[in-house]
Amino acid sequence: MTTTNKKFHVAVVGATGAVGQTMISTLIERNFPIGKLTLLSSKRSAGKEVEVNGEMITVKEATPESFEGVDIALFSAGGSVSKELAPEAVKRGAIVVDNTSAFRMTENVPLVVPEVNPEDLDTHEGIIANPNCSTIQMVVALEPIRKQYGLKKVIVSTYQAVSGSGAKAIQELEKQTKAYFDEGEIKAEVYPHQIAFNAIPQIDVFQDNGFTYEEMKMINETKKIMHMPGLEVAATCVRIPVQNSHSESVYIEIENEEVSVSELQQLMKTAEGITLQDDPAQLEYPMPFPAAGKKDVFVGRIRKDLDRKNGFHLWIVSDNLLKGAAWNSVQIAETLVKRGLLN
Amino acid sequence: MTTTNKKFHVAVVGATGAVGQTMISTLIERNFPIGKLTLLSSKRSAGKEVEVNGEMITVKEATPESFEGVDIALFSAGGSVSKELAPEAVKRGAIVVDNTSAFRMTENVPLVVPEVNPEDLDTHEGIIANPNCSTIQMVVALEPIRKQYGLKKVIVSTYQAVSGSGAKAIQELEKQTKAYFDEGEIKAEVYPHQIAFNAIPQIDVFQDNGFTYEEMKMINETKKIMHMPGLEVAATCVRIPVQNSHSESVYIEIENEEVSVSELQQLMKTAEGITLQDDPAQLEYPMPFPAAGKKDVFVGRIRKDLDRKNGFHLWIVSDNLLKGAAWNSVQIAETLVKRGLLN
Repeated sequence: MTTTNKKFHVAVVGATGAVGQTMISTLIERNFPIGKLTLLSSKRSAGKEVEVNGEMITVKEATPESFEGVDIALFSAGGSVSKELAPEAVKRGAIVVDNTSAFRMTENVPLVVPEVNPEDLDTHEGIIANPNCSTIQMVVALEPIRKQYGLKKVIVSTYQAVSGSGAKAIQELEKQTKAYFDEGEIKAEVYPHQIAFNAIPQIDVFQDNGFTYEEMKMINETKKIMHMPGLEVAATCVRIPVQNSHSESVYIEIENEEVSVSELQQLMKTAEGITLQDDPAQLEYPMPFPAAGKKDVFVGRIRKDLDRKNGFHLWIVSDNLLKGAAWNSVQIAETLVKRGLLN
Repeated sequence: MTTTNKKFHVAVVGATGAVGQTMISTLIERNFPIGKLTLLSSKRSAGKEVEVNGEMITVKEATPESFEGVDIALFSAGGSVSKELAPEAVKRGAIVVDNTSAFRMTENVPLVVPEVNPEDLDTHEGIIANPNCSTIQMVVALEPIRKQYGLKKVIVSTYQAVSGSGAKAIQELEKQTKAYFDEGEIKAEVYPHQIAFNAIPQIDVFQDNGFTYEEMKMINETKKIMHMPGLEVAATCVRIPVQNSHSESVYIEIENEEVSVSELQQLMKTAEGITLQDDPAQLEYPMPFPAAGKKDVFVGRIRKDLDRKNGFHLWIVSDNLLKGAAWNSVQIAETLVKRGLLN
C-alpha cells in the first residue's frame, strides 16, 4: 500500500488488549512499513510478552518518554491513558491515532473514517480520533447514499457484540453460557446484568437525557464525521450474546424521493469498503458470526419504507474489532502515508 | 375471574407444542372454569401423554368430530391445521381462539389483544384470531399512548427469542451452543443459518417488497388491532440467541408535541398489563431473560427524541410464549366469559 520507501517507528499502546492485538496483526497483515515496533501498555499489563511475526516482544509500561522517536502511535488503552499520554506523544513528534473517546468530539481533532472523510486528516494537529465502532460501520454505508441522494434522518437500533468491551467480556459471555448449562452460578462482572441468553439495552453510562453515552457517541460522531450538524440521528444501543461483529437495523430518510432499492444496491456494490449481501431469494443477508474476521462492512436487507417514498431500511454488519477499531486505525495510518502526512 | 358458575368444555389443539403446553398451564393457573379438557394435536403427536394437574391425559388426533360438544377451542398447531379444522369446530358450536396467522387478516375475524380492543370480540362469527407475538407486546404499550396523545408513526426493530419457533428451536440453540464449545459440527435445521452466537435478520419468509412475512404481520396486524389503517408502521425482525421473551426497540411519533417523558412513564405505570421498568440510575430496564415466565409487558428506556418534539423511543420486552401467545389466548377466553359471549 505504501507510496514511499520510508519505514516508520510505530507504537501500539494497549498492546495486550483485544483491539491492540488486532491492531498488531492488522499492521503485519497489511505490510505496514514498520521500521521499529514498540509495544506499550498500562503498568498492570507491562512485562507481558506478545508474539509478532514469530518473535516475542516484551510490552513496556507507557510513559511520556516511551514516545521519543516514535513516528505514529496507535492508542487503545482506555480514555484516561489517552488523555494523559497522547499529548506527550505529540509533544515528542509522534502522530497519535486514538481509538478511545477521549478526543473524538474535541475541536481541531479530526474524527476519521477513511472511506468517508480522509481529507479531514490534512488539518490534524497531532491527534486523530478513531470513531466509536458502531458509528464507523454505519457511516461507511451511509456516506455513499448521502453523496448521491442526500441524507435527512437516521434511526438506528444496534445489536452489539461483547468483544466491544474487551477480551474479558468474551470470557464472561462464554463462562455464563457454560454455567447456564451446568446449572452453576451466573456471575456478572463486566456487565451490570447477565449477558448469556439475554439482551442488555445499555451500553456505557446513562446521560441526563435518558440516552446512554454509546448512543450519544453514535449521534454526535455521525454528525461530525459526515459534516452534517443538522442531520437528525437517533440511536438505541443494545448488547446481545454474540462474541464478535456488531449488527445494526437502520432506517433512513433521504432527500431524493425517486430512488429505487436496486439503485441503492448498485451504489453499495461499488462503494469502497462495502460488501453487498442482499439476496433474499438465496436467504443471503449480513450476519455477525460469518462477518467476524473480515474487514468489510456488510450491507443487506435494503428495502423501501411502505409509507415514505424517501424512507429506506438497511441491515449493516461489521467486525467491531476490525473495521470498528483496529482496521480503521491502521487504515488511518495508511491514509496518512498516502497523503504524505507521515514522514 | 369468572362471572358465572358455568363450566366449559375446553379443547387445546397443538397440546404437545411449546405454546400448547403453556396454554394448558395458564388455563390451570388462572383457574379457568374448565368442565372438560380435550387435548388434541396433529396425527404425528397424537398418542402422547400430557400431565395436567397431576393427571395424565392422552392427546388425540384432531378431526372435525373432535369438536363435538366443545365450547371453546384454543388452536396452536400451525396455520394449515387451523384452516382445515377451525371452521369445523365452529360448525359444531365451538368458539375458536386461533393462535396462527391463518385468519388474522380475514375480514369479520376479530384480531384481539384484550387490553387494546376487547370490544371487537362482540361481533365475532366463531373464529377469533390471536395476533403475532411481536405485535401483541407492542400494541399493549402503544394503545395507552394512542388514546392519550394520538399516534402517527411507529418504527420497530425486534430482538426475538427462539421459542417463537417452538420447542425444537430452543433445542437447536442449545445444541449449537454446546457444539461451539466442544468444537463439534454446528447443524442448522430449524433456522436457515446458525443461531448460536449469531443474529439472523430473517423471521418467516420474504415477500416481494423485501419485508419478511413476520415484518408484514407486525405492520398489518398493528393497524387492524388499533383500528388505524393510516398509521405509519415499519418493522425489522431479527432472531437473536435468547430462549425466551422478545425485545423491541421502538421509535414513535405522537400527535401531541408537549408530552414529557415522565407523563409517558406515568401512563405506562397505570396501564393494564404493563410493568414500567425505567430507572436508569438503578440500571433498571426490561430484559428478556428475567421477563421469561411473566405475563406482563415490560416497558422502559423511555426517552424523548433529540430532534423531534413528538418523537419518543421505548424498549418493550415480554415473554412471547405467554403474553405473545398462550396468555393472550387464555385472556381472550376469559374476556369472552366476562362479556357473556361464551355460554
